[in-house]
Amino acid sequence: MIPMEGKVVRKGIYAECRDKIVRYSEQFGRAPGLAVLMVGDNEASGSYVHSKELAAKKLGIASELVRLPAESSEAEVLREVRRLNLDERYDGVLIQLPLPKTLDAWCILDYLDPGKDVDGFHPVNLGKLVIQREGVIPCTPYGILRMLEHYQIPLAGKQALVLGRSFIVGRPMASLLLNRHATVTVCHSRTTDLADQISRADIVVAAVGKAGMVTAEMVKPGAVLIDVGINHISRLEEAQRLCLPDELDRFEERGYAITGDIHPKAFEKASYYTPVPGGVGMMTVAMLMVNTLTLYERHMGVKGA
Amino acid sequence: MIPMEGKVVRKGIYAECRDKIVRYSEQFGRAPGLAVLMVGDNEASGSYVHSKELAAKKLGIASELVRLPAESSEAEVLREVRRLNLDERYDGVLIQLPLPKTLDAWCILDYLDPGKDVDGFHPVNLGKLVIQREGVIPCTPYGILRMLEHYQIPLAGKQALVLGRSFIVGRPMASLLLNRHATVTVCHSRTTDLADQISRADIVVAAVGKAGMVTAEMVKPGAVLIDVGINHISRLEEAQRLCLPDELDRFEERGYAITGDIHPKAFEKASYYTPVPGGVGMMTVAMLMVNTLTLYERHMGVKGA
Repeated sequence: MIPMEGKVVRKGIYAECRDKIVRYSEQFGRAPGLAVLMVGDNEASGSYVHSKELAAKKLGIASELVRLPAESSEAEVLREVRRLNLDERYDGVLIQLPLPKTLDAWCILDYLDPGKDVDGFHPVNLGKLVIQREGVIPCTPYGILRMLEHYQIPLAGKQALVLGRSFIVGRPMASLLLNRHATVTVCHSRTTDLADQISRADIVVAAVGKAGMVTAEMVKPGAVLIDVGINHISRLEEAQRLCLPDELDRFEERGYAITGDIHPKAFEKASYYTPVPGGVGMMTVAMLMVNTLTLYERHMGVKGA
Repeated sequence: MIPMEGKVVRKGIYAECRDKIVRYSEQFGRAPGLAVLMVGDNEASGSYVHSKELAAKKLGIASELVRLPAESSEAEVLREVRRLNLDERYDGVLIQLPLPKTLDAWCILDYLDPGKDVDGFHPVNLGKLVIQREGVIPCTPYGILRMLEHYQIPLAGKQALVLGRSFIVGRPMASLLLNRHATVTVCHSRTTDLADQISRADIVVAAVGKAGMVTAEMVKPGAVLIDVGINHISRLEEAQRLCLPDELDRFEERGYAITGDIHPKAFEKASYYTPVPGGVGMMTVAMLMVNTLTLYERHMGVKGA
């Protein structure tokens, strides 16, 4: 049971990015640019945006936070997206989700230049992923792929199980694994034989947001367990059921615990697993930086980008 | 073992289309229009195109075949696509594949207006399928879905197995089944436990182009078997192995036989199956007509189209 440490994988990725950015900034006379558009002030979004800004700063990516009031009309938001599409200082533009419910998020995402869609949520980029063409890969699944590569987990011919079918994680993850020649099954809330499905999988990617739903009894010995869930536990009996002693201590200190979708006891049966916290969660922002850099390279005409 | 007859399903679809087209043509003053762009003269393409023209004519869809010489440059083809994109008489534009190898097919498909992409191969439409948004569904998987609906095959919570991962059939089929709440597995040439996978599936969609590769021993009794393969058999021993007596008689008359990817003996174990020929193959052109009509309805602002 080897933990796949987000920090370790990220460190290597960041070092590589930093080197490239130093070199490119000299060569091309400007750093990669990332604009983050935030409408209204959702508290969780605010802290995500902050961590994105910090990462960009650390790597030498020029990032700008553009804020619009929560009561902005669709036309106002689209006007801002248009401005960012056209502004050559930005290689990547990110529209922070969720948008206020008064706005049609799809309409706004559709309006983003797919060549600047650093989140990879534009239909063009999701479609290109399906047909294995060069596009932009959504950050969380891409981060998982990089972790699998870092730990040299073989994928071709393996049984991969994706739990969850969101367009942010589950569906693009399934496409990525399929493109790497895994046999891929997607399970979800309507799946009737989940335990049976999990028991046959060589690789499990759990992304449903249900604390500890994959239990030790379900998993195949030696499986690779990737846990995308980040669940906030505030009840003691839940913490007792779902946490190992260390995290339980933390629960007692802080009054809450963080657990994944996979019960930590299951990790003991795994060959490799991603801890929660400290696993997949550390990769998403890192891949946003990688995507920004890739879009910059394409804009600058760097070969093979 | 009930055969799912392409002819029967198609008949209902065509009747519905014809009624709508008569009504709309009166209401809006023009029939739906379909342009088929063919570059060069591939013989197989020619006969497909002919069957599309016949179907359009039968339903009252105005179809035009636009031919360009095989030696056309990319710029010339793009110019023609642009003209068809802008021509308001055409609701659907189809670029007949394969294109001559001198041309970059993706570049040309990307240039097609996604709102006229009647084949559903534009990345925008493939992406919209992934995220369950209104787009255009590729004809063969859409035809299979309509057959499943016609025979009232339940999909939610069922184990569906898609054999093959092409962007024309396998991948969009997997998305469609997932959107209908099936648990979906995609298998392909690199899958290591194919027989085992097939044995657990409630619904098998075989789209690999390997005659008789799904055998009777593999399938679960009562499964629904959808056969997309159309394989041309010209050797007697193959025909003897893969054909039932009727098709074998035809082999002796014509010197060839047509078989699917599923061995006909497997159909005997199925609850429902699509015969080859006479099953899925009859649906593709029909769904092209349905897609043309849907695009027409959208252009005309018909509600719910």
